[in-house]
Amino acid sequence: MTDPEENAPASSPLAPGEIGLVTARDFTCPHPFTFKSGQVLPAFTLRYETYGELSATRDNCVLICHALSGDHHCAGVHALEDRKPGWWNNLIGPGKAVDTTRFFVVCANVLGGCVGSSGPSSLDPATGRPFGIGFPFVTILDMVRAQKLLLDHLGVATVHAVIGGSMGGMQALQFAIEFPHFTRRVLAMATTARESAQAIAFNEVGRQAIMQDPDWNRGDYAKGGGPRVGLAIARMMAHITYVSDASMDRKFGRRKTNPGNGEAYTFDVQFEVESYLRHQGQSFINRFDANSYLYITRALDQFDLASAYGSLEAAFAPVQAETLVVGFTSDWLFPPEQNRQIALALLRAGKRASYAELTTDLGHDSFLLESEELYTLVRAFLERTAAPIADFSI
Amino acid sequence: MTDPEENAPASSPLAPGEIGLVTARDFTCPHPFTFKSGQVLPAFTLRYETYGELSATRDNCVLICHALSGDHHCAGVHALEDRKPGWWNNLIGPGKAVDTTRFFVVCANVLGGCVGSSGPSSLDPATGRPFGIGFPFVTILDMVRAQKLLLDHLGVATVHAVIGGSMGGMQALQFAIEFPHFTRRVLAMATTARESAQAIAFNEVGRQAIMQDPDWNRGDYAKGGGPRVGLAIARMMAHITYVSDASMDRKFGRRKTNPGNGEAYTFDVQFEVESYLRHQGQSFINRFDANSYLYITRALDQFDLASAYGSLEAAFAPVQAETLVVGFTSDWLFPPEQNRQIALALLRAGKRASYAELTTDLGHDSFLLESEELYTLVRAFLERTAAPIADFSI
Repeated sequence: MTDPEENAPASSPLAPGEIGLVTARDFTCPHPFTFKSGQVLPAFTLRYETYGELSATRDNCVLICHALSGDHHCAGVHALEDRKPGWWNNLIGPGKAVDTTRFFVVCANVLGGCVGSSGPSSLDPATGRPFGIGFPFVTILDMVRAQKLLLDHLGVATVHAVIGGSMGGMQALQFAIEFPHFTRRVLAMATTARESAQAIAFNEVGRQAIMQDPDWNRGDYAKGGGPRVGLAIARMMAHITYVSDASMDRKFGRRKTNPGNGEAYTFDVQFEVESYLRHQGQSFINRFDANSYLYITRALDQFDLASAYGSLEAAFAPVQAETLVVGFTSDWLFPPEQNRQIALALLRAGKRASYAELTTDLGHDSFLLESEELYTLVRAFLERTAAPIADFSI
Repeated sequence: MTDPEENAPASSPLAPGEIGLVTARDFTCPHPFTFKSGQVLPAFTLRYETYGELSATRDNCVLICHALSGDHHCAGVHALEDRKPGWWNNLIGPGKAVDTTRFFVVCANVLGGCVGSSGPSSLDPATGRPFGIGFPFVTILDMVRAQKLLLDHLGVATVHAVIGGSMGGMQALQFAIEFPHFTRRVLAMATTARESAQAIAFNEVGRQAIMQDPDWNRGDYAKGGGPRVGLAIARMMAHITYVSDASMDRKFGRRKTNPGNGEAYTFDVQFEVESYLRHQGQSFINRFDANSYLYITRALDQFDLASAYGSLEAAFAPVQAETLVVGFTSDWLFPPEQNRQIALALLRAGKRASYAELTTDLGHDSFLLESEELYTLVRAFLERTAAPIADFSI
């Protein structure tokens, strides 16, 4: 997903109707955590934020799951001088589609991430150095199991809804499968039940750019160092897949950075879109860890509900949640059809599921952008009365 | 474009109906050549091949223009043991769509290329070392001007047709504009009159992968050396843009290289599509020069007929050729609409032009692949009687 700064609202994040100042906290689970791979961490930490208050009945929690390059900071600001609010601040806040006066909103940096949660850049207590690629392999299933432990710790009895776009949508689906009696609603956007070969291919080029950078050093580098060039290349390329041809043409077209200069015969920046991409690459390397990029893209590639459970219908068999899947017409990374197939498989499995397709020309990142149509869908889905959870044992 | 080996026909390239053995030759123009940039080379060389014989009236030449990573070897084989014929061998040969028993077919490696023609990997006589980025900047216009000098040298009076796909299509259009009285027919496929921001963006990521590789050394490296890692990354990424999501899914899907192994928790190759892409990158670095990649992608990005001539209609004003533009439905690099716009602008400018759209799911590289529908279009377009060239002076 693109940097949150691009979604910054025009109004001040401290204005009325905004969440305002928020503080991230750390949850450390002191018990051993066994990953799907069989590897074990003796303990793990998730950094998270919450907005709103848990109700007396402890059933008003909305869990927000982030995408590849997102983090726990999805709404509000961390300091008065912050110009960037959280990455989904347009959706979440008092009176907004995810209304923090009604819901207890929780968002955690994923396991394997690099913004406070345990991941390859965390220090390995055994060596005092970053785990690097010695960190256990992470899957979407591991991410949601860790988040469930956080919700238990916070005293949540059932989640009102799990919401996520892109990799966040994968987590939302996986959460409903893994914790069916705990999950009332799932809202998955711009996502897929398994990536296509093309999506794997783009991730692989990004990984190769990182791993072939001599500074990667088989994942062994000091915190803040590492394969900055490779990571920037990976990010530049991935960014193209998050937007659409039409939106890039509208935003940049073929405009030159120095239009008065005639035809510039140079390999330096010449087109605005080049300057923009380089900026995307440079700002990313200051906030993201290259090993986390490897881990999380691998988790994306390996996510395959049909293969893991025999079929998509079998995967969804335990689901109790009502599900809304939202696809975006211009999303060519996880195209509408892949979203529609999720809803269809849920219906085939006898579940309550709907599919909505929004017409946008903003590409995959449409789920992050201002859209009254999306806000209305989200608000209405969260407000409607959920069907009772069946007395159903797996 | 993809490697020619992927288009290798099932039959032997030495069978009847095939061109058989061919030899490349070098044309060295001993006069100074002034590039569009104003830079001058005291002389230049083009490596080229010809198939068939120039007729007594010297008007049966078909000029084939290659794409970014192609070269002059578009048909036949170089040695009896060759398993790879030229990259358009399916289209060109005795009795084929471009019939070498009737036409004198010429194809040259572009100026700025690295397969025998003068380019950044050529030795600079002044220093005895490769030019590197001291080579003059190359544009599509420079490429076609150099090819015209080759055709003059070969005694060609008029070209029956100029044919090209992708960058080859840009050259074909530019040729008809620059040499209107010399050019009877233009067949441009899977091309554009100017790249979109997205296409520039992909090229820029490739250039950054090359230029940020420490072995690039500002373009100063020994022949055969240089930024192999960066070039492989650029190629892997570009390859994704040459094919389609559907064709990758059909060819690889999510198949694992080691399916018996269950879930492999590794950053090594795991999916077949990863293995395939790595092979694409590795084979490319053994046949292509990284500086040429920079030069040619820059030529692609800078090609903009509307901007160069005021409007697309103004650009086409001098054209005498009949033009057929062919777009492919699954081409998302130079989408059908961009091809259609070329024919439309020619029609608006009062020219004879047609647009044909072929339904394929093979992506941009569709123009290279086996297609009886395409062969029929090409054959019919070459056979029909051309309108007389007007007595028209620019």
